[in-house]
Amino acid sequence: MIDQRTSVLLTDLYQLTMLQAYFDRGMNDTAVFELFVRKLPRERNFLLAAGLEQVLDYLANLRFTREELDWLLSTGRFTSEFLHSLEDLCFTGDVHAMPEGTVFFLDEPLLRVVAPLREAQLVESRVMNLVHYQTVVASKAVRCVFVAPGKLLVDFGLRRAHGAEAGLHSARASYLAGFSGTATVLAGALFDIPLYGTMAHSFIQTHADEGLAFENFVRSHPGNTTLLIDTYDTELAAQKVVALAAKWRNQGIAIGGVRLDSGDLAEHARRVRRILDAGGFGGVRIFASGNLDEYKLRDLVASGAPIDGFGVGTRMNTSVDAPYLNSAYKLEEYAGQPRRKRSEGKATWPGRKQVYRRFDQWGHMAGDVLALEWESLAGVPLLRPVMRNGRRLVVSTPLKDVRDYTAQQIAALPAPLRALEEAERYRVSISDALRELARSVDETTPSQLTCGAG
Amino acid sequence: MIDQRTSVLLTDLYQLTMLQAYFDRGMNDTAVFELFVRKLPRERNFLLAAGLEQVLDYLANLRFTREELDWLLSTGRFTSEFLHSLEDLCFTGDVHAMPEGTVFFLDEPLLRVVAPLREAQLVESRVMNLVHYQTVVASKAVRCVFVAPGKLLVDFGLRRAHGAEAGLHSARASYLAGFSGTATVLAGALFDIPLYGTMAHSFIQTHADEGLAFENFVRSHPGNTTLLIDTYDTELAAQKVVALAAKWRNQGIAIGGVRLDSGDLAEHARRVRRILDAGGFGGVRIFASGNLDEYKLRDLVASGAPIDGFGVGTRMNTSVDAPYLNSAYKLEEYAGQPRRKRSEGKATWPGRKQVYRRFDQWGHMAGDVLALEWESLAGVPLLRPVMRNGRRLVVSTPLKDVRDYTAQQIAALPAPLRALEEAERYRVSISDALRELARSVDETTPSQLTCGAG
Repeated sequence: MIDQRTSVLLTDLYQLTMLQAYFDRGMNDTAVFELFVRKLPRERNFLLAAGLEQVLDYLANLRFTREELDWLLSTGRFTSEFLHSLEDLCFTGDVHAMPEGTVFFLDEPLLRVVAPLREAQLVESRVMNLVHYQTVVASKAVRCVFVAPGKLLVDFGLRRAHGAEAGLHSARASYLAGFSGTATVLAGALFDIPLYGTMAHSFIQTHADEGLAFENFVRSHPGNTTLLIDTYDTELAAQKVVALAAKWRNQGIAIGGVRLDSGDLAEHARRVRRILDAGGFGGVRIFASGNLDEYKLRDLVASGAPIDGFGVGTRMNTSVDAPYLNSAYKLEEYAGQPRRKRSEGKATWPGRKQVYRRFDQWGHMAGDVLALEWESLAGVPLLRPVMRNGRRLVVSTPLKDVRDYTAQQIAALPAPLRALEEAERYRVSISDALRELARSVDETTPSQLTCGAG
Repeated sequence: MIDQRTSVLLTDLYQLTMLQAYFDRGMNDTAVFELFVRKLPRERNFLLAAGLEQVLDYLANLRFTREELDWLLSTGRFTSEFLHSLEDLCFTGDVHAMPEGTVFFLDEPLLRVVAPLREAQLVESRVMNLVHYQTVVASKAVRCVFVAPGKLLVDFGLRRAHGAEAGLHSARASYLAGFSGTATVLAGALFDIPLYGTMAHSFIQTHADEGLAFENFVRSHPGNTTLLIDTYDTELAAQKVVALAAKWRNQGIAIGGVRLDSGDLAEHARRVRRILDAGGFGGVRIFASGNLDEYKLRDLVASGAPIDGFGVGTRMNTSVDAPYLNSAYKLEEYAGQPRRKRSEGKATWPGRKQVYRRFDQWGHMAGDVLALEWESLAGVPLLRPVMRNGRRLVVSTPLKDVRDYTAQQIAALPAPLRALEEAERYRVSISDALRELARSVDETTPSQLTCGAG
């Protein structure tokens, strides 16, 4: 049985064909790859690094199974000597990375892999796949957090996330970015993320009477339930809730809130608030959902709509305005020699790099420098060692702590970068030593074509 | 160990809290849910149904494990009686569905689940998650197929797909829609999809000399390799390929093609074609990649660029212009009574439905009718029984056959719907009997609010 999620075969064919060629030539010196984003989408003023935990887990467990090797042999594309050499392959390299939740910008490596060539190359596809998606989601979700301070924000997006892992990892990445929790049960079980849920329209519809549906749900969950009130007529339902809640109160049962899922959410919220307040239920909260994103949240909050919490799904989990990042995992050094790709519009900075971040007197980020690792510059170095010789240097950080770290990162953002609209770009400079290295690499590689990188 | 991909906990919390309430009231009559798309994105003139195979697999294996039930108990949200009742839960219902690859439109159910309430409700989140994503990708990928007839189209998108399953399922859905194959090895192993691959820039960069890199790769893969030629200077590299290939020819080694991945692909292709032809390598094909989608493919093909095949990745796998569909899984009947949700802008058609499709004398689709299942109308009924009492009625269809069926569906599309731009909407009518049923359901449900659905 091949495990779809953890299989080493979750990679691109060319990784394996290149490994065959490296094997044939005995090429397996130390390679240095760095993962970075070439360009920020216009809709993002910064990015939040995420997914490192899953990368470390993947690397620590990298193995070919007998079944996978047999299948590869059956394709006729590889020699049995080569496949035999993969039997004992595991990840033995070093990894440096920005901690999850770190704010970063274009061209800044958020992860560096230093390992024998075959290991560092093989893992490219899945390492990118893991970091890319969580970074996409965290960088989207944090925008919702900005515009709805103090509101409950819950990930509702499993059903339209792009597959099982996207459902799980978007719950993780949005929580890390500051969401309150998720509706995805498995994310609660695996990542200890707080779970939230209300009820579906179908629950109302299975009952001949809406009030009876409310009654039956509350009896089974006498704690802190949220009733969905838009199945037929929102305000009529709110009145039913008031009548029922008065009765329940006498029985010692309190409800937590009501949910709106359609129509003009702000207007319904105002009317429902009035109905609840008039009925003596000022403490019952109003929760809204329905194709929300940071733009709609901003408008709802700005309108003063009395909404206490939001379910945010599809448009966050798919990062609808920027569903991907121009990410890359590039060879920067091989066998001790710095390397640089010079393809048009895709040139890279060579060598092992570090990002130094300076802060102003108020603790706000005041500019980054992309430098070579050996340089010692002013500021905080963002890349830290996280794996050595294939072993993790630190145990898995509790997600709650990652979330706190993210909040600190966000607090240090220059105010203009918190805007939803495109702001003046944050300054990332290139150190003189790095520029000089790029120049010298250009002089020693075959063609005379040069093009700027950055 | 909880399996992240197959766990029943990959669901929304409210499914389980609703099940607790149903258990407490002894409500478990037959429920009918249908999955449909409320609205087509402006960028799609039709959709292609996909993901059914994975849904049937999921339903056939639906089980709570001991560990999952223990975890649910530990949350304190559920009674032990209820959790005990889940121990023997499996899917015992019936499923009707459109075959994968079927063209469909708004409001048309592509899947119907008829099962005891707790089963039909529990599976909502994952069934939607599975069908939604493959449908998104197939409906995007087929647009690439339209604009690049006769070209090799290969899915290159694993690294930026939204997680592991998105990588795998986008390989499947794009192949189903007419792509030639994928670079994702695991998709080849699991779904028997043809694999394609070239080489990465890093392979060139690990060699001090580009020509030596070509040499080393070709020696290891003397078959039908594709060499990447844009790492430094595309045309210089093409000249090197010609010189080397002349030598290899004398040794009985032929190369298949070259790949361009940056710059003005059309212009580079023209220049490279001239270089290859002048060198006597008219048979060496040109393959292009780099942030392509159907719009760029159309322009490249229209420009007459001599490109024989395309690697299409990120923008297809994330369906960048329409990353989600307004899909819904709604209760249409419970305990023999038709049901209808009437939330503003989200009203549904009640009852068990069928879609009848008529064709004109040339075999082109000429209009659909959304009707009740018992009606017998002119045209081909699109929903077919695929599962009865929890057992599949047909074995898994080979993906190659699904792909052929899709091609037939596409051949029957009215020409205007093949446009990349928004076309006049295909006509989907509502049968008189269905309208009448909706009216009568409205009269018997609590509120007097009515709103159109469609």
